[in-house]
Amino acid sequence: MRARVFVTLKPSVFDPQGRTIAEALHSLGYANVDDVRQGKYFELDLQTEEASAARKIAAEVADKVLANPVIESYKIEVD
Amino acid sequence: MRARVFVTLKPSVFDPQGRTIAEALHSLGYANVDDVRQGKYFELDLQTEEASAARKIAAEVADKVLANPVIESYKIEVD
Repeated sequence: MRARVFVTLKPSVFDPQGRTIAEALHSLGYANVDDVRQGKYFELDLQTEEASAARKIAAEVADKVLANPVIESYKIEVD
Repeated sequence: MRARVFVTLKPSVFDPQGRTIAEALHSLGYANVDDVRQGKYFELDLQTEEASAARKIAAEVADKVLANPVIESYKIEVD
C-alpha cells in the first residue's frame, strides 16, 4: 500500500518560506493569492495490504522521523 | 478557496533524499518500508469562490514558480 504524509508548520508558527512565495506571486501579478504555506510531502511504499497497518506505520514514522511535533503537524492518507 | 499543490520528482528521476529516508527507516527497524519519495507541499489561500478558477490559478502558479516541469510533476486539489 501507499501512504502519503503531508507535513506542515503549525498554524501558529511563522512560515517565512511561504511568505516569500506569496510575495513573489504578488510581484508576478497574482494579487488574488492571499497566503501560501509550504510543507513537505512524502510517499511511502509499504509492504502491507491492510490500510490500518499502513496508517499505523506511517504515523509512527511521521512522529519519529518525518515531522518535528513541536512545530509541525502532519496528515496521513492511505490508498 | 484553498488549493493544495503536491510537487514530486518524476518517477524516472532519482530521489536521493527519499532514498536516504528509506535507508534511515530500515536502520530503525522499519523493514516493511519499500521506498520513500520526498516532495513539496503548498497550500494556497485564494480570493476566489470558484473551484475552476482556483484550479486554473494554482496550475499557472505551479508551472511558473512552484515546480520545475523538466524534472517534477504536480497534482492539485481544491477545497
